[in-house]
Amino acid sequence: MNKIEPRTLAGFMELMPNEQILFNQMKQKIEKTYQKFGFLPLDTPILELSEVLLAKAGGETEKQIYRFEKGDTDISMRFDLTVPLAKYVVKNYGNLSFPFRRYQIGKVYRGERTQKGRFREFYQCDIDIIGDGELSILNDAELPSVIYNVFKELGFDDFTICINNRKILNGLFENLEQKENSVEILRIIDKIEKIGKEAVIEELEKIGIPKISINKIIEFIEIDGITDEKLQKLQALNIENETFKLGYEELTQVVKNIRLFGIPETNFKVDLTIARGLDYYTGTVYETFLNKNREIGSICSGGRYENLAEFYTDKKLPGVGVSIGLTRLFYKLNELNLIKAEKKSIADVLVVPMVEDLSVPIKIANNLREKGINTEIFLNDKKLKAKMKYADKLDIPFVIVVGEEEVNSGNIKIKNMLTGEEKECSLENINF
Amino acid sequence: MNKIEPRTLAGFMELMPNEQILFNQMKQKIEKTYQKFGFLPLDTPILELSEVLLAKAGGETEKQIYRFEKGDTDISMRFDLTVPLAKYVVKNYGNLSFPFRRYQIGKVYRGERTQKGRFREFYQCDIDIIGDGELSILNDAELPSVIYNVFKELGFDDFTICINNRKILNGLFENLEQKENSVEILRIIDKIEKIGKEAVIEELEKIGIPKISINKIIEFIEIDGITDEKLQKLQALNIENETFKLGYEELTQVVKNIRLFGIPETNFKVDLTIARGLDYYTGTVYETFLNKNREIGSICSGGRYENLAEFYTDKKLPGVGVSIGLTRLFYKLNELNLIKAEKKSIADVLVVPMVEDLSVPIKIANNLREKGINTEIFLNDKKLKAKMKYADKLDIPFVIVVGEEEVNSGNIKIKNMLTGEEKECSLENINF
Repeated sequence: MNKIEPRTLAGFMELMPNEQILFNQMKQKIEKTYQKFGFLPLDTPILELSEVLLAKAGGETEKQIYRFEKGDTDISMRFDLTVPLAKYVVKNYGNLSFPFRRYQIGKVYRGERTQKGRFREFYQCDIDIIGDGELSILNDAELPSVIYNVFKELGFDDFTICINNRKILNGLFENLEQKENSVEILRIIDKIEKIGKEAVIEELEKIGIPKISINKIIEFIEIDGITDEKLQKLQALNIENETFKLGYEELTQVVKNIRLFGIPETNFKVDLTIARGLDYYTGTVYETFLNKNREIGSICSGGRYENLAEFYTDKKLPGVGVSIGLTRLFYKLNELNLIKAEKKSIADVLVVPMVEDLSVPIKIANNLREKGINTEIFLNDKKLKAKMKYADKLDIPFVIVVGEEEVNSGNIKIKNMLTGEEKECSLENINF
Repeated sequence: MNKIEPRTLAGFMELMPNEQILFNQMKQKIEKTYQKFGFLPLDTPILELSEVLLAKAGGETEKQIYRFEKGDTDISMRFDLTVPLAKYVVKNYGNLSFPFRRYQIGKVYRGERTQKGRFREFYQCDIDIIGDGELSILNDAELPSVIYNVFKELGFDDFTICINNRKILNGLFENLEQKENSVEILRIIDKIEKIGKEAVIEELEKIGIPKISINKIIEFIEIDGITDEKLQKLQALNIENETFKLGYEELTQVVKNIRLFGIPETNFKVDLTIARGLDYYTGTVYETFLNKNREIGSICSGGRYENLAEFYTDKKLPGVGVSIGLTRLFYKLNELNLIKAEKKSIADVLVVPMVEDLSVPIKIANNLREKGINTEIFLNDKKLKAKMKYADKLDIPFVIVVGEEEVNSGNIKIKNMLTGEEKECSLENINF
């Protein structure tokens, strides 16, 4: 028979079991933390009606969509978890309690150009808080607290949650009468770390921004110091614009309450240059960086939006949310050897029978499982050496070999595979 | 602006948060039990190359596939977790340790005709043990032990794991020289409970089975009694056929070892009529039923196959596995009100601030979370009554209202939402 070569699509992550164990631990820690803050689980379909899913999409996004017809139905694969959330909230509006706090961890699909570290199927881990008509700014302060706890839980200390408010940027550009150039200006000032101040000024001149506005922009992006100094300098800019002032108020509120939530000053900062896309977020925005690995990019981002679902409803549904792109994060951390794992194996113990009658080995395995210890029993006919090698390859930390001697004496030895030490105990009372 | 009506595709389950909590608890219990037996996690892509995924498919299956082109690539959505496993094992053969024991819990896609209780996107929860060249029959005895533990964990007692061996059926039909009619015969005898013995005989006559063979078939399917009696009667049939004898030996071995694994006699039985599809399984087969709800059908099925991946490789990779169709199972159990849940909410506690300064309420929430208690803090401006209603609707079991009095006295009251009882304790030492 002709054989088909088994292969996986390019851009689709498929891990070896030992990597999958690490991946799942990260996923679980994120989920546990989301639950710790009382977010409710959601699991929407991966397929949606194209008409519903793409109500808002267009341009680049739409080109990346996996879209097809099945029968008469025009179907698309979800490309994020926010549009399905919008659909869900409007569809079930009458049955939900607001503020509606949900988390969703699931795969999304984008047919991007394949390149190293970019995935076409990837996990997003999202939380959002949706208000019915209104949503207190306090929620914007709570999310950094969730982010903080997630990354602490994942074993990181040296990370910074960067916070800004889109109203500040929008108000500034309004005030400088540069609203229509804001996309271009943001693109240029974003490069300041790479190309330097002089080059930024040059580029701003090139697109026709007046000297006086350029000065104000530079003054703005050069605001530095600790958080409170930044806020003072921001106020001292004396921008006479309502949007700017509202943004300043919100940011000040968020900073104040972030402190109440107990996030150390070293783990958050105001970064007046982050903007996060241009048409979606309307207030607070977040990005998160590993300080020693800025090159990974933001590992958790999001922000506040005025209207979750304007394509489906006239109801005002403001929300605030953040998302972790887990697949890419895992890939990068794994590459940099930065993943902190508690367990490298699923089984804690391998029971290795070296007797005909399996009663005793199975009894041991059953007892251990009852105690909550993950236990595998090696049921296949192999030499002892091969069985030990199996435990070793799977990183199983303890092995219990059960031979005639053990069955007769009622005493067993628990071998620590890391240290090689053996500990004796009775069959009736196995402890580690 | 024209609004799009937000709706979900027919045949796609989308749960309300309170149902999703139950669903996730079931999923997690299944996963925990799989891990308790040392199965390794796998998470393969939902999309595969059609050439790879459909190497073996055909007929009915192929018609149900969600298949499309993206660029030049012919892509299909997985319709089960077994074909991706076969691909994975052959692709990573050199890097896996055998026996390879893996679990996978994930969504699969079948464009079936929509009808109540049938889903086009559904979760399968699979375990398989794959041997390299050979795989001991003991593995066939271990799987019922996993099934047993899963359903006990899910809160069920009154269920039966039915076990058979395909070699017995195949050997019987060979012996009766009815091999080419085996599909038809199985289809007919499967109806005996519905249509009765006489009608079965009639139908068998109609397709031309000789009287003497019909007698033997009826004698075979009428074998009854407790497990050991069945095995005795099976042997007493005196079928002179090697396949039959091998099947008998295997079944006897499996029964013997199932007992060693500690499954009560009430939770398993030999059922000589189950066959589970016709071209895939080659030895042991399993079906599992809730005795009081047989109408649900088998809730966990599977069996032994000689060759996992013959479409990809000449290597012999025998395996044994079972699968739980969780989406359908959940749907049915939910409909019958048979789901046993430990927790109906994610948050254990709702902290309700009734003060301007949020320091104390946030401190309480942080403390509780540090103790591992899922805690939500209500951050939005509502009347106390509305906040209590929110806790009630979300089934949050405890509420701590924090007003001026509590802040000043340092004493708080924990309200049990179920009993209405209030318990007082100090801020420093909150306990339930």
